[in-house]
Amino acid sequence: MTFDHLWTTIETEELFGDGGRTTRWLAIIGEIASGQAAFGLIPEPAAREISRRAELGVDLEAVAEETRRTGHSTLGLIRVLQRDLSEEARQWVSYGTTVQDVADTWTGIVAREMLRIAERDLGRTEASLVALALRHRDAIMLGRTHGQPGLPITFGFKAAVWIAELRRHRERIGEARPRLAVGQLSGAVGTMSAWGEHGPALQQLVLERLALGVPDTSWLTARDRVAELLGLLAMATATLAKIGNEVYNLQRPEIGELSEAPAAGVVGSITMPQKRNPERSEHLGTLARVVRAAAGLAVEGMVAEHERDGAAWKTEWAFLPQACGAAAAALALGAELAAGLQVDERRMRENVEAQRGYVLAEAAMLALGAEVGPRRAHELVHAAAGRGLERGQTLREALAGDPEIAGRVDLDATLRPELALGATDELVRRVLGDG
Amino acid sequence: MTFDHLWTTIETEELFGDGGRTTRWLAIIGEIASGQAAFGLIPEPAAREISRRAELGVDLEAVAEETRRTGHSTLGLIRVLQRDLSEEARQWVSYGTTVQDVADTWTGIVAREMLRIAERDLGRTEASLVALALRHRDAIMLGRTHGQPGLPITFGFKAAVWIAELRRHRERIGEARPRLAVGQLSGAVGTMSAWGEHGPALQQLVLERLALGVPDTSWLTARDRVAELLGLLAMATATLAKIGNEVYNLQRPEIGELSEAPAAGVVGSITMPQKRNPERSEHLGTLARVVRAAAGLAVEGMVAEHERDGAAWKTEWAFLPQACGAAAAALALGAELAAGLQVDERRMRENVEAQRGYVLAEAAMLALGAEVGPRRAHELVHAAAGRGLERGQTLREALAGDPEIAGRVDLDATLRPELALGATDELVRRVLGDG
Amino acid sequence: MTFDHLWTTIETEELFGDGGRTTRWLAIIGEIASGQAAFGLIPEPAAREISRRAELGVDLEAVAEETRRTGHSTLGLIRVLQRDLSEEARQWVSYGTTVQDVADTWTGIVAREMLRIAERDLGRTEASLVALALRHRDAIMLGRTHGQPGLPITFGFKAAVWIAELRRHRERIGEARPRLAVGQLSGAVGTMSAWGEHGPALQQLVLERLALGVPDTSWLTARDRVAELLGLLAMATATLAKIGNEVYNLQRPEIGELSEAPAAGVVGSITMPQKRNPERSEHLGTLARVVRAAAGLAVEGMVAEHERDGAAWKTEWAFLPQACGAAAAALALGAELAAGLQVDERRMRENVEAQRGYVLAEAAMLALGAEVGPRRAHELVHAAAGRGLERGQTLREALAGDPEIAGRVDLDATLRPELALGATDELVRRVLGDG
Amino acid sequence: MTFDHLWTTIETEELFGDGGRTTRWLAIIGEIASGQAAFGLIPEPAAREISRRAELGVDLEAVAEETRRTGHSTLGLIRVLQRDLSEEARQWVSYGTTVQDVADTWTGIVAREMLRIAERDLGRTEASLVALALRHRDAIMLGRTHGQPGLPITFGFKAAVWIAELRRHRERIGEARPRLAVGQLSGAVGTMSAWGEHGPALQQLVLERLALGVPDTSWLTARDRVAELLGLLAMATATLAKIGNEVYNLQRPEIGELSEAPAAGVVGSITMPQKRNPERSEHLGTLARVVRAAAGLAVEGMVAEHERDGAAWKTEWAFLPQACGAAAAALALGAELAAGLQVDERRMRENVEAQRGYVLAEAAMLALGAEVGPRRAHELVHAAAGRGLERGQTLREALAGDPEIAGRVDLDATLRPELALGATDELVRRVLGDG
Repeated sequence: MTFDHLWTTIETEELFGDGGRTTRWLAIIGEIASGQAAFGLIPEPAAREISRRAELGVDLEAVAEETRRTGHSTLGLIRVLQRDLSEEARQWVSYGTTVQDVADTWTGIVAREMLRIAERDLGRTEASLVALALRHRDAIMLGRTHGQPGLPITFGFKAAVWIAELRRHRERIGEARPRLAVGQLSGAVGTMSAWGEHGPALQQLVLERLALGVPDTSWLTARDRVAELLGLLAMATATLAKIGNEVYNLQRPEIGELSEAPAAGVVGSITMPQKRNPERSEHLGTLARVVRAAAGLAVEGMVAEHERDGAAWKTEWAFLPQACGAAAAALALGAELAAGLQVDERRMRENVEAQRGYVLAEAAMLALGAEVGPRRAHELVHAAAGRGLERGQTLREALAGDPEIAGRVDLDATLRPELALGATDELVRRVLGDG
Repeated sequence: MTFDHLWTTIETEELFGDGGRTTRWLAIIGEIASGQAAFGLIPEPAAREISRRAELGVDLEAVAEETRRTGHSTLGLIRVLQRDLSEEARQWVSYGTTVQDVADTWTGIVAREMLRIAERDLGRTEASLVALALRHRDAIMLGRTHGQPGLPITFGFKAAVWIAELRRHRERIGEARPRLAVGQLSGAVGTMSAWGEHGPALQQLVLERLALGVPDTSWLTARDRVAELLGLLAMATATLAKIGNEVYNLQRPEIGELSEAPAAGVVGSITMPQKRNPERSEHLGTLARVVRAAAGLAVEGMVAEHERDGAAWKTEWAFLPQACGAAAAALALGAELAAGLQVDERRMRENVEAQRGYVLAEAAMLALGAEVGPRRAHELVHAAAGRGLERGQTLREALAGDPEIAGRVDLDATLRPELALGATDELVRRVLGDG
Repeated sequence: MTFDHLWTTIETEELFGDGGRTTRWLAIIGEIASGQAAFGLIPEPAAREISRRAELGVDLEAVAEETRRTGHSTLGLIRVLQRDLSEEARQWVSYGTTVQDVADTWTGIVAREMLRIAERDLGRTEASLVALALRHRDAIMLGRTHGQPGLPITFGFKAAVWIAELRRHRERIGEARPRLAVGQLSGAVGTMSAWGEHGPALQQLVLERLALGVPDTSWLTARDRVAELLGLLAMATATLAKIGNEVYNLQRPEIGELSEAPAAGVVGSITMPQKRNPERSEHLGTLARVVRAAAGLAVEGMVAEHERDGAAWKTEWAFLPQACGAAAAALALGAELAAGLQVDERRMRENVEAQRGYVLAEAAMLALGAEVGPRRAHELVHAAAGRGLERGQTLREALAGDPEIAGRVDLDATLRPELALGATDELVRRVLGDG
Repeated sequence: MTFDHLWTTIETEELFGDGGRTTRWLAIIGEIASGQAAFGLIPEPAAREISRRAELGVDLEAVAEETRRTGHSTLGLIRVLQRDLSEEARQWVSYGTTVQDVADTWTGIVAREMLRIAERDLGRTEASLVALALRHRDAIMLGRTHGQPGLPITFGFKAAVWIAELRRHRERIGEARPRLAVGQLSGAVGTMSAWGEHGPALQQLVLERLALGVPDTSWLTARDRVAELLGLLAMATATLAKIGNEVYNLQRPEIGELSEAPAAGVVGSITMPQKRNPERSEHLGTLARVVRAAAGLAVEGMVAEHERDGAAWKTEWAFLPQACGAAAAALALGAELAAGLQVDERRMRENVEAQRGYVLAEAAMLALGAEVGPRRAHELVHAAAGRGLERGQTLREALAGDPEIAGRVDLDATLRPELALGATDELVRRVLGDG
C-alpha cells in the first residue's frame, strides 16, 4: 500500500484490486444470468434477482474466507453472493459455467482496458514530444555512439526517432485490439456443454453486453492473446524506458542537455540537500523490467495442456496484475516526463563546442575526399586529428597544420555543425510534417 | 555441425551461416555502390567494379582474420573485398556508411525471410491439421482438465482450437510484415550525414532494389522491429510446442490417442530396442524455450542509448541466428509432425469408456437439475458419484442406486457421450467450415 | 487478498506486508538510534524516545499518504514517526542514514528469514519423502524416458533422486547463509559519511543487535547477494515443481501410480462433480515460474551504476515480495504434498505388466549378448520385439518364437523386472542408508 | 566464424566446438571401455582396441552425416568409431550406456573447466584492480547516485566494492566445485541396469580416471547442477558487466575519469576518425545478457520429467555452448579491461570542483547540526543551497551569505572533500588490507 503509487495507477488498481476485480466478476455473473434467462436456461426472476444482487457488491473479507475454505477460485465469491438470494435464485448463480468463463471474460476486459490506456497515454506522450520537437527542432546537439560524441544531430531528430517508435506501438495496438478484447464463456472444457443448443447465442449476447468480441472457439488453453497483450505492453514500456534512460544520462550535470521537470513537494534526498534526481526517468527503467519478465511468462504459459491447465493459467494471476499495473504506471509516468521535459539548447551547443571540432572530422574527410579520393582523405584526416588531439589543438588547427588538407579544403566553410547534418531536416519532416 | 539439423534449417543456415550472411552483406554493399553512382556520389566505373566484385564472394577465412585484426564488425569484409579492386574503386567501397547500414539492412532481409518461412510453414501445419480434423471430426475423446478426465470432446474440437491459434499467428504476421521488412542505410548517427542532399533518395533506391521497405527515420537505436519479430516467432513456436506437448502426453502408451509418424531410419534408443519416442514433439518444447529466451533479450535491447548503442545491438548478433534457426527448425518440425500425426479413434473411445461414465456426471446433473433445481442436483449427483467411485460402480450403477435420481432422469438417454458435447459441432464449424 | 493464500504464507505476509515490513523498518530505525547514542552521535534521551516510539508502530495509512506526498521511499515513514516525538527527539530520527541503510538491512533480514524457511521446509519435505521411500522402497514401477516406458525402477529409486536433489539445496543454503544475511548501514554513497570515525563500530553494533552479519564494504550497488538468494529460491522451487509435475502426470487416471492426498473441504470442480485434481502439484509449477522470472531480474539488477542506482535497486521492491511469497508458498505446499503423497503399488505393478514384457528387452539383449555378442543380440531382440509388437504378442512370446534367442536364453529366468534393476538397490542405499 | 572471437575463447571453442567436444566424448567412451574390461564386462582386447581408436579421433563430417541419418545423438559418433574396429571390438563400443552417460559426463567436465576458467580469470581481474586501487587509493572523485553527484568518494573505495564482489564469486565457485564437477554413467534410466553388480564400481573407476566426482545417484533428470553452474556464470558476468558499464559511463568525454586502454590496431569507426569507443566495456554488457538468459533456461530445465526428459535436457545443448562461450569471453575481456584500465585523477578532481561545493552540503549540514540540531541544519542548508544554485554561487558563497550558518560553521575547515569521506579509508582497508 505504502508504495502502490510506484507500481500501479488508479485505473489499474480499480481493474486488479480485490474490489474492482470482484465488481467486474459480479457484473459478468450478472450478465450471464440475464443472458441465460433470455434463452430460457434459467428462470427469469432468478436472473433478475442475481443480476440485481450482483450490482450491490459483496463483503470482500467473506469472499476471501470462503475462497480459502473451498480452495476454489470462484466458489468463494459465488457462495457469498448466494447468501442474500432466495432459495430459488441461489441455485442458478453461474449456471453451467467454469472458473475461466468468468475469469477469462474479465481478462478480455483487462485487455481492452489496457490497450485503451496504452493508446491514450502513448498518444499523450507523443503529443508532448511533438510539441517539444517542433520548439527545439533545429537545436544542434551531439549525436552519440557508444557513449561518445559522434556527429552533430538536432533535438528534432532525436525526438523524431522516439515519436516514430511510439507511433508504431499505437499502430500495433490498433491491429491487436479486435483480436484481444474478446471474452470466453465456453464451459468446463470449452464446448459449452451445459447450455444445450443455446451456447453460442448465449455467448454472443453476454459478450456483446460486456462490449467484448466473440472468440471463434474456446481459448481456455490457447493463451496467445495474453502473450500478445503482454508483448505489446512490454515493448511500449521498453520504449518509455529508453526515453527515460536518455533523459537520465543527458541530465547528468556533466552533460545537462535534458532534464525532468522538478516535481513539486518531492524530496530528492534526505542526506544530500542539493540533489535533483531523475526519479521518473529511472523508474521507467525499473517498470519496464517488470513488464518484460511477465511477457516471458506469458509466452511460456502458451504451452498449456489439454482442455484446461492450471499451472500455465494460474501464472497469469500472478503476472497480470503486477505487469499491467507496472505498465500503466510507466505509461502515465512517460506522459508526465514528456510533458515536463526541459531542453537546454545552450548546454547542447556548449557540448558540441567542447568537442573542439572533432565531431566534424567526417565533414572534413568528405570534403577532402572529393579532391583526393576518400581513402587518402581518411588517412590524412585521421592522422591530422590524431596529432591535433595529442597536441591539444582544435580540429581546425590540426587540419590547418597539414598543407595537404589546408590547401584543398575551405576549413571555415566546412567545419560548421549545421553543414554536417545530412538529411536530418528531411528525416524530421517525414515524422513531424512541415509543422 | 554434428547437431545442426536440430537447431537450424537449410534456409536459416543460408541466412545466418558465415557464407550466406556474407553473400547478402556483399549484395547490400554492391547495391549501395550502384545507388551511390546513380546519384553521382561515387564514380560509375568504381561502382560497377564494386558490385561485380561483390557478386563473386570472398574468402571467408580471410574476412575472419581481418575482422579479428581490426576488431571492427565490417571492416574485415571491406578490406578483403578491396584486395581485388583497382586503386580507384577500392576507395569507394561502403562510402559514408556505418556498420549498421549494412547489418541492419540485412536484419530487414532476415525479418522478411523469417516471416515468409513462418507464414508458409504455419500454413502447411494448418492444412495438415485441417485435413486430419475433418477426417476425425466427430471422434469422441476425453476432454482433460488439470490432467484429469473432465467431459467428452471430439478430436475435431481439439484440432480446431489449434487451428484457430495458428491462424491468429498468420494474421499477426500479415500485419507486421510491412512494418518489419525495412532496411536501414542512414549513416553513422542516422542522419545520412555523408551523402548530402541525396541521402533519402539513395536510401529509397537501394532498399527498393533489395525488396525492402523504407523506414521513416533511423532505427539505429529503435529496435522495436527486432523485438516484434522475435515476439512473433516466440509465440508461433510456443503454439507448436503446445501441440507437441499434447502429442507427447497423448502418445504415452497408457493413453495412446495420438502418435507421431514413425520416422524412417531413426533409432529410438540404443539400449532399449522397443522404444518409440515422441522425439519431434519433445524437441518442439526445447526449441520454443530457446526462441522465448531470445524474445526477452530483444525487448531488453530496445532500451538502447543515444544514436548508437553496441551493448544493446550486439546482443542481436548472439540471439538472432540462434533463435531464428530454432524457430525455423520448429516451424519445419511442426509441419512434419502435423503431416504425419496419427489419431487412434479406438483408444480414444476406450479411454472414454474406461471412465465408466463419470465424465458424464455433468450431463446427469443438468438433466436432474431441470427437475429438482441445479443445486439439489449437484448435491445428489455428487453424493451418488462419490459412493459409486468408492464401491467400484459405474456412474450409471451409482445413479440408478439413488431413487431420487433414478426416478427422475432417463439414465440411458442421458448418459451418452455424444449428448454431452454441447456446442462442439458449432464451434468446430466456425473454424473448419462445413467441410 | 482473496487469493493471497495461493501466493504467500503467513510468514512471508508478515515479512513483506505493509504492516510487517514497517514494523521491521521501525525496529531498524530504533536500533540505529540506540547505536548512535551509544557512540555519542545523538543524544541518549532522543535515542530512547525514538526506539520506544518505534516499537509502538505507526498508522500505515498516514505513512502511505506521506510517502506519496514526498515521493520519497522512507521519508513518509520518518515523518509519521516524528509526529509523536518531542521537538528534540524528532531531529535525530534516522540520522545520517539513507533509504537503503534501512531497506537493505531489512533485505538482509529477508535473506536470513527466507533461508531459514527454505531450509526448514525442504527438510520437512525430505523427511516425508524419506519415510515414503523406505515404505515403498522396493516397489517396482516403470522407469519412463521421453514419456515412454523404458526399464523398471523402484519407487525408492525415484524418491532417492528427489531426496538427493533436495539435500543439495540445503547444502547450498548452508553455504550461502553467512554471505547473505548481512545488513547495510553505510550512508548515502556507502562511505558512512555522516558518522565520523564511529561509522564502522556503529554498523557492527547495530547489525549485531539485529542478528545480521557485517558486510566488508558497501553493497549499495553490489547486489550479488540478492541475486544469489533469488537463485537459491528459484532452484529450490524448481525442484518442487519437478516433483509436482511428476505427481501430476502419475496421478492421471490412465497411470494412477501416485496421487495427492485429497484435501478436506476442497471443491475440485463446480461443473464436474467427480473431479479430483492435482491442484497442489500443479500450483507448484505455477509458483516456480514466478520465482524463476524474478531470479532473472535479480541478476539483471546486479548491473547497477555508480554508488547508488534506483532503476536496478527498485526492481527488487517489485520482485522480492512476490518471489519470496511464491517461494514460501511453494515450500509449504511441497512439504504438504510430500506429507500426504499416496503411492499405489498395485497400479505400479499393473503398469509394468501392461507393457507385456517389452520394458525387459534390454535384459534379454544383455543375456543374449553374453552368448552371441551385443551387436547380434541387439539385432535379434530388436527384430523379434518388432515382430511381437506387430502381432500383439508379449515379449516372452516374441522371443520364444525365435530359435536363435530361445535356444540361448532362459527366458523365464531373464524376463523378470526385479532382475532388470541393475544397481538400484545400491543407489538407493547411498541416499537413504540401510534404513 | 567471422565473429567467433566476440562470443567464445580458444578454451571454450576447444570445449564446445565439434572437434573438441567429440575428442572428449571419445575419451569418455574409451575410458568406459577400459573400465568395463577391468570388471570383465567386455573383452580386454576389445577395450584396448576401442580406447586406442578413440584417441585417434574421427572424421567429423562422417559423424554429422550418420547423426542426421540415425536421428540419434551419439549413435552417429559410435557408428563412425566402429568403422575402423574389428568385428569383435565393434560390438562393445559404449556397452550398456545411454546418450546422457557420455554427454552428462562431458557436462561434468564442462562444469569443472568453466569453474576453473572463471576462478582464474576473476582472480586476474581482481589482481589488476587491487594494484590499480592501491595506486589510486586516495584519489578523490564524485560518488554518484541516480546518475547525479552525491558525495565525494575515492577511487580506492569504488574499486574495493568491485573487488569484494569478485571475491564473493570466487568463494561461491570454491563451494560449488565438488558439487558440480561430477560425471554421470548410470545407464538408460539411471539404475546402471546393464552392468550387473559392477555398475557402481565401474562408475567410480571411470569418473576417477576422468578426474570427476561420483554422484550419489542418477542426475539424468536432476539438473540442479547445470542450473547452479549457469547461475554462477551469470552472476560473475553480471559483475563484469557492471564494471564495464561504469567504465563506459565514466569514459564519456564529458566525465573522463576512467578509460579503457586503447587497443592496438583496432579501428574505432570507419566514418568518424576521431572516435575512441569503450568497446570492451560495452561488450561486457552484451555478453552478460546472453549468459543471464541461459541461466533462466537452466532453471526451467530443472523441471524434468520421469527418468529422462528430452525437452528439458536438449535445451542444454543450445544454451551451454553459447552461454559458456559468452561467459568465457566476458571473463577474458574483464581481465583485459582491468589490466589496462586508465584512471585520470585530474579529471576526477576537476569534476568534484565543478560541483562548486554542493556535494559537500551534507558536511556543512552535519557541522551546523551539531550547533542547531540536525533538522534546523537541514532547513538552513537546503534553503541556502537552493538560493546559491539559483544565483550561480558556489556552496561556500551561498552558506557564507546566511549569517545563521556562517556564524556557526567554520566553512573553510568544513567544506573540504577529504573531510567528507567518512569511513572510506577503513572500508578500503577492510578489502585491500594496509597495502
